[in-house]
Amino acid sequence: MDLQRRIIEGRGEFLLFALTPPRQTASAERAQEIADITAERLRPVGVDGLILYDIDDESDRNPAERPFPFLPTMDPADYLSRHFDGWDTPVVVYRSVGKYPEPDFDAWLRAQDTDRRLSVFVGAASRDTPVATSLARAHALRSQTRPDLLLGGVAIPERHARTGDEHLRLLRKQAGGCSFFVTQVVYDVNAAKNLVSDYRYECLAQGVTPAPIVFTFSVCGSMKTLEFLRWLGVDVPRWISNELLHADDTLEASFEYALAAARELITYCRRLGVPFGLNVESVSIRRAEIEASVDLAAQLRDELHRSD
Amino acid sequence: MDLQRRIIEGRGEFLLFALTPPRQTASAERAQEIADITAERLRPVGVDGLILYDIDDESDRNPAERPFPFLPTMDPADYLSRHFDGWDTPVVVYRSVGKYPEPDFDAWLRAQDTDRRLSVFVGAASRDTPVATSLARAHALRSQTRPDLLLGGVAIPERHARTGDEHLRLLRKQAGGCSFFVTQVVYDVNAAKNLVSDYRYECLAQGVTPAPIVFTFSVCGSMKTLEFLRWLGVDVPRWISNELLHADDTLEASFEYALAAARELITYCRRLGVPFGLNVESVSIRRAEIEASVDLAAQLRDELHRSD
Repeated sequence: MDLQRRIIEGRGEFLLFALTPPRQTASAERAQEIADITAERLRPVGVDGLILYDIDDESDRNPAERPFPFLPTMDPADYLSRHFDGWDTPVVVYRSVGKYPEPDFDAWLRAQDTDRRLSVFVGAASRDTPVATSLARAHALRSQTRPDLLLGGVAIPERHARTGDEHLRLLRKQAGGCSFFVTQVVYDVNAAKNLVSDYRYECLAQGVTPAPIVFTFSVCGSMKTLEFLRWLGVDVPRWISNELLHADDTLEASFEYALAAARELITYCRRLGVPFGLNVESVSIRRAEIEASVDLAAQLRDELHRSD
Repeated sequence: MDLQRRIIEGRGEFLLFALTPPRQTASAERAQEIADITAERLRPVGVDGLILYDIDDESDRNPAERPFPFLPTMDPADYLSRHFDGWDTPVVVYRSVGKYPEPDFDAWLRAQDTDRRLSVFVGAASRDTPVATSLARAHALRSQTRPDLLLGGVAIPERHARTGDEHLRLLRKQAGGCSFFVTQVVYDVNAAKNLVSDYRYECLAQGVTPAPIVFTFSVCGSMKTLEFLRWLGVDVPRWISNELLHADDTLEASFEYALAAARELITYCRRLGVPFGLNVESVSIRRAEIEASVDLAAQLRDELHRSD
């Protein structure tokens, strides 16, 4: 059963792996090399799909100093078509829609093979960021020209912890055409369960079928990576950051936490009847962390129920 | 190995059961009847000790309407000496010290058999409550006249979530003579883990041996009881209150949550090397909830490592 069917039929139980495109400064040869190494690493894992992020300089959103400097990355759609086109699973392409003039965005939409491509549209990082195409306009264009392109929405448990209405936001996105959701990296399992629970019971109340929620996990090999996760808006509970700080092997400890968090959410979602997917994001560019991310994906693959 | 040694030697792994004395309006005969029924129910469980609460009208602390009306209860020390004296485990007697003139409190202290009695001194519910004996004075009296009376302190994970310094408060209490801690009812395991973790690493930094933390659990048979727990200051995560609200059998569901929470904290504390005890509190006076509380204690008894 392919990714699209798992989403449309509300089956869930799928695995994604999220990549960040190479830096803009990389040559075409270097970008191809990176793509080839990545494909080789990921092929044995048997993921159901990839995610390609569209990285923005989010200094508008968070004025605190970025723990890692912002280095512009290639456009995910370009990277995909030029260097990753041979990859044989569907790819979820993130699009920071504000960066693209409407004609360019519309042309991209029309060119997509919806058997092989899905998308997540991301709005501006803050209200002050100037945009070429608004999120609302991007959704309208997709509804008009490519309603068959499966669209995901962003789900943020941390926002739910603060405002308590993220589940309503998910339902609005669903009404606007989203058929799955992707969280940012989850370290606070309790916050994720609160969101899933409120979403589930609101779906029940409104007579809506819950859409799959894809939980993102990452390893974390150093305090610097942890600091970066926090900068990105990830809530890391005190007990976990204490453990990572005092662990003999931070990377290994974070691997165990990610696995435990995933298992807890898997059990919880199955019990509640909310379809889910899992996503592994490699946050750092250190080789050891990338390899641990691939190992994590392989382990998570074994946790899924795939009776079909 | 008795309760006192488990505390003093930092072994932990003990089980308490917490009782509220009968109402002040109960006759001596009725109070004896209640004591006898309670003893009969609890005897098969094999608890290491009892806790007797000293219930205050806490309307000073929380101006919101109390879900259950406040009905004054017997003084725990009186109830114990008059009706429960034959009970064969140590008893931790809570003392709302502000209620007692110093001579009375001092006389009580001197009369205690420290092989059979421990205590937790509780201060005023708010700064505006008039007190006959202050908490500081109570501690000073105990240090002077009964330093061998083991003293526990209150630990509040919810306060740690708000202020981040509850672990420092525990260390100050420990320096002031406390040799164990008792939490209020735990529903938010994440908050409890955060407190345990911060406490553990602060102990390490200060070269202090961690004292046992006693985690309190309760079942909850109705939305009214849940509301009462919240009134008492217990943080109940959204996902748990949603489940309790939608459960076919709220009492049974809450039993499972309490058991899962206890198991998670047991595993966590053992891994971290923080000694712990477990305490079951019967929050409601409904018979089904009392019986479920006793069942919970019996189950928790089996979770403990008792190699001695």
